[in-house]
Amino acid sequence: MAQKTNVRERLLAAALETLHKNGFNATGVQDITEAAMVPKGSFYNHFESKDALGVEVVEQYAAKGAERRQTLIAGAGAPLARLKAYFKSLNQLGPASGFSRGCLLGNFSAELSSQSPDIKGAVADALADWTKDIAQVVAEAQQAGEVGRDIPAATLAAFLLNAWEGAVLRTRVDRSAAPLDAFMKVAFNKILT
Amino acid sequence: MAQKTNVRERLLAAALETLHKNGFNATGVQDITEAAMVPKGSFYNHFESKDALGVEVVEQYAAKGAERRQTLIAGAGAPLARLKAYFKSLNQLGPASGFSRGCLLGNFSAELSSQSPDIKGAVADALADWTKDIAQVVAEAQQAGEVGRDIPAATLAAFLLNAWEGAVLRTRVDRSAAPLDAFMKVAFNKILT
Repeated sequence: MAQKTNVRERLLAAALETLHKNGFNATGVQDITEAAMVPKGSFYNHFESKDALGVEVVEQYAAKGAERRQTLIAGAGAPLARLKAYFKSLNQLGPASGFSRGCLLGNFSAELSSQSPDIKGAVADALADWTKDIAQVVAEAQQAGEVGRDIPAATLAAFLLNAWEGAVLRTRVDRSAAPLDAFMKVAFNKILT
Repeated sequence: MAQKTNVRERLLAAALETLHKNGFNATGVQDITEAAMVPKGSFYNHFESKDALGVEVVEQYAAKGAERRQTLIAGAGAPLARLKAYFKSLNQLGPASGFSRGCLLGNFSAELSSQSPDIKGAVADALADWTKDIAQVVAEAQQAGEVGRDIPAATLAAFLLNAWEGAVLRTRVDRSAAPLDAFMKVAFNKILT
């Protein structure tokens, strides 16, 4: 049983790595079992399908993202400063991989929304939770008088997250931090004011 | 020769349709030849590889997009009104497919940036041209006093295009126009002011 759990965890970790790096459809079950160093035949003992594994990968990625948002939500400092620090910290993830990976949620949105209803659902849930957390802090910033109340916090939060995802997408093509710099400049000089 | 050209054009048209609908890696050469109703063996008479076809698909998609920008660039009306009408017209493309397709350039950015340097290059060129056209009209709006000059037109244009791509990505997951509505609201009430 310990062994079985171990194989499952190794498959999940390997899938998170390979699917983020190479995309869902470019990665075969065999690529995942090889990366996990487990026999190919063991895959279907642990996951009903590649799609089912994809859902769990999204959930695990989303859980890591939610953990990263703890400082945004409950950290010290004024809400606007927390938002800025949060996006700054996110932006440091891109250069680490030479802007080659992007955000798994954005990648799966593009690649799988029309292919896998289950993965699309998991991505939708993850993005909804993420938006809600950002909206909460934007609302705090509005209450503190740091951000205007002319547009609802939920709308600003959705716009910001989508704009950030779009900027990350562009970093992948341009292999440059410029889209993230433009995001920070416009977000914190024009939108969150 | 007439026949040969015809087959090539049919392959390109079928590829544009199937790759946009289903993605690059989920579409095989056989799917494309079947959609084009040409023999599978004919593919490599016309294209060196699926990647080479992908580059031409991006170029053709980009050319259509550039055509659509003629009214934005050289149409009647004030620059800010042209920008608003332009994004409004783009946003009408989503519901037509039930938000199932998104933007081919965004999709390929996510799926192929780390897989195909040639397709990444073609997407980068297309997005650079697109940004330049938007920047030109934003600069006109700044000169006309419709938009503040505190942030350079090129930065605003890049931000706007990336934010729009991110919003389109989100429509695919949520199957709703709400991300596009949020884009319009924030873009034209907070950024282009």
